[in-house]
Amino acid sequence: MIGATSRGVFTLSCLLATTAIAPPPAGDDLPGYSRAAARAEREWETQFRAIPSPDTQRESMRRLSARPHHVGSPYEHDNSEWILSRFRSFGLDAHIETFDVLYPTPKDRLVELVSPSHFRAALREPAVAGDPTSAQQSEQLPGFNVYSRDGDVTAPLVYVNYGIPADYDTLARHGVSVTGAIVIARYGHSWRGIKPKVAAEHGAIGCLIYSDPQDDGYAQGDVFPNGPFRPRDGVQRGSVMDMPIYPGDPLTPGVGATPGAKRLALADAKTITKIPVLPISYADAQPLLAAIRGPVAPATWRGSLPITYHIGPGPARVHLRVKFNWDTKPIHDVIARIPGSDAPDEWVIRGNHYDAWVNGASDPISGQVALLEEARALGALVSKGWHPRRTIIYCAWDGEEPGLLGSTEWVETHADELTRHAVAYLNTDQTERGYLELEGSPMLEPLLNGVAREIRDPETGASLWQRARARLVRSAKPEEREEARTRADLRIGALGSGSDYSSFVHHLGIASANLQFGGEGTADGVYHSVYDDFYWFTHFSDTSFAYGRALSQTVGTAVMRLADAQVLPYDFTALADAVRKYAHEVEALAKEKADTIAEFNRELRDGVFGLTTDPRESSALPDPIVQPPHLNFAPLDNGVDALARSAAEYDKARGALTAHDSSALDATGHQSAALATLNATLIASERTLLSNDGLVGRPWYRHLLYAPGAYTGYGVKTLPGVRESIEQQHWELADAEIVRVGAVLQSEAIVVSRAASELREAAK
Amino acid sequence: MIGATSRGVFTLSCLLATTAIAPPPAGDDLPGYSRAAARAEREWETQFRAIPSPDTQRESMRRLSARPHHVGSPYEHDNSEWILSRFRSFGLDAHIETFDVLYPTPKDRLVELVSPSHFRAALREPAVAGDPTSAQQSEQLPGFNVYSRDGDVTAPLVYVNYGIPADYDTLARHGVSVTGAIVIARYGHSWRGIKPKVAAEHGAIGCLIYSDPQDDGYAQGDVFPNGPFRPRDGVQRGSVMDMPIYPGDPLTPGVGATPGAKRLALADAKTITKIPVLPISYADAQPLLAAIRGPVAPATWRGSLPITYHIGPGPARVHLRVKFNWDTKPIHDVIARIPGSDAPDEWVIRGNHYDAWVNGASDPISGQVALLEEARALGALVSKGWHPRRTIIYCAWDGEEPGLLGSTEWVETHADELTRHAVAYLNTDQTERGYLELEGSPMLEPLLNGVAREIRDPETGASLWQRARARLVRSAKPEEREEARTRADLRIGALGSGSDYSSFVHHLGIASANLQFGGEGTADGVYHSVYDDFYWFTHFSDTSFAYGRALSQTVGTAVMRLADAQVLPYDFTALADAVRKYAHEVEALAKEKADTIAEFNRELRDGVFGLTTDPRESSALPDPIVQPPHLNFAPLDNGVDALARSAAEYDKARGALTAHDSSALDATGHQSAALATLNATLIASERTLLSNDGLVGRPWYRHLLYAPGAYTGYGVKTLPGVRESIEQQHWELADAEIVRVGAVLQSEAIVVSRAASELREAAK
Repeated sequence: MIGATSRGVFTLSCLLATTAIAPPPAGDDLPGYSRAAARAEREWETQFRAIPSPDTQRESMRRLSARPHHVGSPYEHDNSEWILSRFRSFGLDAHIETFDVLYPTPKDRLVELVSPSHFRAALREPAVAGDPTSAQQSEQLPGFNVYSRDGDVTAPLVYVNYGIPADYDTLARHGVSVTGAIVIARYGHSWRGIKPKVAAEHGAIGCLIYSDPQDDGYAQGDVFPNGPFRPRDGVQRGSVMDMPIYPGDPLTPGVGATPGAKRLALADAKTITKIPVLPISYADAQPLLAAIRGPVAPATWRGSLPITYHIGPGPARVHLRVKFNWDTKPIHDVIARIPGSDAPDEWVIRGNHYDAWVNGASDPISGQVALLEEARALGALVSKGWHPRRTIIYCAWDGEEPGLLGSTEWVETHADELTRHAVAYLNTDQTERGYLELEGSPMLEPLLNGVAREIRDPETGASLWQRARARLVRSAKPEEREEARTRADLRIGALGSGSDYSSFVHHLGIASANLQFGGEGTADGVYHSVYDDFYWFTHFSDTSFAYGRALSQTVGTAVMRLADAQVLPYDFTALADAVRKYAHEVEALAKEKADTIAEFNRELRDGVFGLTTDPRESSALPDPIVQPPHLNFAPLDNGVDALARSAAEYDKARGALTAHDSSALDATGHQSAALATLNATLIASERTLLSNDGLVGRPWYRHLLYAPGAYTGYGVKTLPGVRESIEQQHWELADAEIVRVGAVLQSEAIVVSRAASELREAAK
Repeated sequence: MIGATSRGVFTLSCLLATTAIAPPPAGDDLPGYSRAAARAEREWETQFRAIPSPDTQRESMRRLSARPHHVGSPYEHDNSEWILSRFRSFGLDAHIETFDVLYPTPKDRLVELVSPSHFRAALREPAVAGDPTSAQQSEQLPGFNVYSRDGDVTAPLVYVNYGIPADYDTLARHGVSVTGAIVIARYGHSWRGIKPKVAAEHGAIGCLIYSDPQDDGYAQGDVFPNGPFRPRDGVQRGSVMDMPIYPGDPLTPGVGATPGAKRLALADAKTITKIPVLPISYADAQPLLAAIRGPVAPATWRGSLPITYHIGPGPARVHLRVKFNWDTKPIHDVIARIPGSDAPDEWVIRGNHYDAWVNGASDPISGQVALLEEARALGALVSKGWHPRRTIIYCAWDGEEPGLLGSTEWVETHADELTRHAVAYLNTDQTERGYLELEGSPMLEPLLNGVAREIRDPETGASLWQRARARLVRSAKPEEREEARTRADLRIGALGSGSDYSSFVHHLGIASANLQFGGEGTADGVYHSVYDDFYWFTHFSDTSFAYGRALSQTVGTAVMRLADAQVLPYDFTALADAVRKYAHEVEALAKEKADTIAEFNRELRDGVFGLTTDPRESSALPDPIVQPPHLNFAPLDNGVDALARSAAEYDKARGALTAHDSSALDATGHQSAALATLNATLIASERTLLSNDGLVGRPWYRHLLYAPGAYTGYGVKTLPGVRESIEQQHWELADAEIVRVGAVLQSEAIVVSRAASELREAAK
């Protein structure tokens, strides 16, 4: 995965079996299915879930992670051919689509402390005895941040904590400027590309990013090879493109990077950093940080290195030099297809990338081998006579790590077809042990909950759903417990960024989901380093591949259920409920922001700041902040209400449809015209949430309900236009964005009402 | 100070001057004074506050901290004679009272790792270049914990975090037992004597205590001599007596350690540890901690050493040997007196200890030099014709560090006189820069607030009170801000333990207070080490002694105001309000405890624990907990109401007294019989809050409103019998304790009503 996301987790519940963990009732109540169709579907699903094999996943991982296989490497090309051959051996109709993308690789990297003493960073990850692939140094890319610009700078060093905007507010309160400085930021709390972006916005001329052992090293647990966590020389590689503007090839925003595509000049590519950046290990960072003086860093800024963290600037001066080969490289997406029988023009799409930073056993091969097992199992079902109603497309993406290149270029290339045909996109990436963690479009929430209720957790024998709900109950605050215990479905988180779903959901408005297991694993410890390999995975992560099998079972079941449903199993009440929650959140945010500013100004006016400042530290009093106006949330609330009413209407129609064993649904062969009309409306429903203008300042992002944060990068911002303008105190914009979201919700309500009427028609 | 207390801080407020910081109005409205008397008092106080001198404090500190001066050392004896001569030179009637106390000193100390590798702890603090007294090694006591028993043990090591009871609950959940093990605990979160006590209760056979750099070292800031914080070899000495049972000489509980006193056999002294204990530096601790394996410590247990913290047990095996000279040593309290003119049998007592662990510039000399300047200034006033109405007694205590020996033995020796005569006890100990921090009996709250309003903060020019209130407002949670801004007085914290007020308030029921400056200082960094010396203090703490002067001004003013008031300035509405707050707290605690247990049992019953346990970690499910009954808080609430009614009656009488310029108060010479009767009743009022039986299991502690926690040691427990029985889930005892507190509050209400009637009589 391109970035260690804040994990999407289930957030709600229903009645849980007590000590005796009962299997879920295998009813015939599948939403979107007639009773007869549901019975048939369940029989095929049961057969499906018996097929995925842990041993096969293990051997596939051994093969795919045997050598470094980053973009453009020989072994990546080799892997693409091997995956292609696997898909074909399963009986799928597979091919490779190739794109040519900008992919710079380092030719010069230097970090040295030039004063007050001299130290040169090693910038290398040594081989570990007993771990054979860690020694494949001739094939490894060294530690670097792709899409850093070239640079050669020498300047005083400033420690900026995580390097997010709030950290610069703190620096300002300490009277510290980064203008003309090199900053050193620790990984975490944002997409890594945010760190050089914000540093450059504040005038810095270079950026180092390191893994502090507090977040990612010995403070988390024993380090590799004694344990799974990051060793002292481990480096987190990774992209620093300004992905919140657009992902994919920096030279071809909005269009596929095909041979004839119009390409930007390098200088015009907005997603390349403005300053040079390089990631370093904590062994390399410690002498640099220890040489900084100036104010002692605030308590929350201090990591776990055995030093006193200071902010600077200087006296430590650092020389940073990075130069890249600015080459174009081919990427190879492997696309496999099972044609639909009744509705071949309705596509269920499933993907996981296969490119890695180095050997990438966990990221991404742990997810890729689960995907391959799903494909193998579905191929086996087809050979037994199963014919999915819709077309199923399995995708092994290349080029995810540098910036979601493979998926984005493919989506941009096929945008018109996908807009017409795509029913849903289901993504996975690296996976571990533990709990099923889900993010996705809220209209998929009941579908995914239904699947999670039917798959067994390998460790406890309970259902995945029961275990996820138990986690939610145990971690809930007291005021959240009632919902955790009683809500029929667990809420699923919204999609930010960090893996290949982004172009599907954010650019084209295709209902999407991302699934993984986590919460007991430790994958972050070797994330994007040479130590993320077969040895590490089989010693510390899902060592038995039991969760790999569970992932195949889960995602494959969801794919089948989407592919075979007579009426697409979208749920608009779940959507309306989620949007109502988002609306409450932004309303609370606006109030909290106003209250905080009022209190701040009052304390400033009352002299509280002057009386609580230690004169031995700084210094100047802060300036007062303009008090925010009240915002008009009525258009948003009206939009939510309209959507909720339409959703109730649709639910009523759906109830009428499934109350009797509807023969209207059970015609064989191509689906009825009425059903086709209904499903086409349903397919359009998530598209309706797009704006052709996109978000302000980043038009590639067209979904008005979810986007990665402009200054967080992974972390989702729901109602991003509204939320970010409140966060950034752009009050007039906030009012305008509320109107825009309200309008799109009204449009969605109309679509849903039309679907309700079409559903009534189809059921006649 | 014997222990680094959680600082007592003001907790409330009133209207604050804005940018222009106005001086407080010098009215003639001193509580307990007629208008004429108030005018005279203020004139004397103004003269008093001009006298204390920073330079004199600096020179006194240089003298008193020039050499190590622990109990029994030659320089401690020398200091006692010097302080005596100072008091006499100020014109005070001074003498020394000597007690003979058990004071073991180390003759053998060994800590070594014996497997899996060998390491021997250095157990020494090196001299620091430029800091002359750090080199006085022949006179220093080495790092040790006084009142550890002798021991020679070798056993597996277990890391127990702070070593408080909750940490052992965590160990149990990890399936780790300390039976037969040596534990290593970090300093903090309790009186250090709690750590070996709880360890022994759980079966451990030895205890090491170390200073983790997260709490006390480089993670806090630059270490000495580059900064004020604890260097790698710094060791926190200190007492480990089981002080929550009783403080003072372990061999003479409840009676003065005078020549003829009956002494316990050493084996019968309950406050000596059950297992050997030794404190070590973080340099010495690191190899030991690094050698521990077993489960990785929970996140909150991990400190700032560059290692992965494990719990154990073992494989690290440690050999710990400590042997002591079990000697009796003399301690020398220096007692000075200014006789009262009108009411010589009413005593205002003021104290600060002068013994140290080594040179002790900060602890305790920073407070002692402030006390000496008060005494000098009061002596000067006397020579100008000031005659305090009451007797003032200044006390320089010896033997505080090992266990409040000097103050406790003196109080026990003079218990009968003190019970009859003592009006109040005002204590200080080490002091720094920053904010006035106050703890004390609530009936002194308005008096102390009044004084704090009249003294200027050296750094801001605002009053101490304004600055303390600003701190409170800035740190308040939103729901606390209204009270922080509008309450007429700042609340003062209750007294736990950690300095010499304990025997006054907890054993004899004498209204007491403890005052210091803090919040900008850094005294903990060299606390109880050889580096707490003149060099350190004059480089990093109150370097100009401006706060030392402010402390003299503050405490001296309070002493004068208590000594000269016609009616003792006690406030029972403040007392009732504080007790009502305590009552609400214990009621909320009982509810929270019941809710937490109910939720825990429910989750256990629902299988939540089983479903959220990682099978690669342990293990056994916890046992259900007996659901607490509802407690009957009515006796407590009725007691509070009764007290509040009596307090209102007293306030009304007081208002009537001061509404006209009461000539009744202004008789010269010995106070009127009516006033004497009233003041005797007032003196008895705090005594009324005692129980002759004392607290359950620790009868030395007789106050029913405050005590140090049995398992926290410093931290105060208000309504200790009620609160601790709820915390420890002794529900029947809790109900009985509520009745006991309710009864004492009813008795207090009767005393206060009598005082009201006597006040009306005196005013006639």
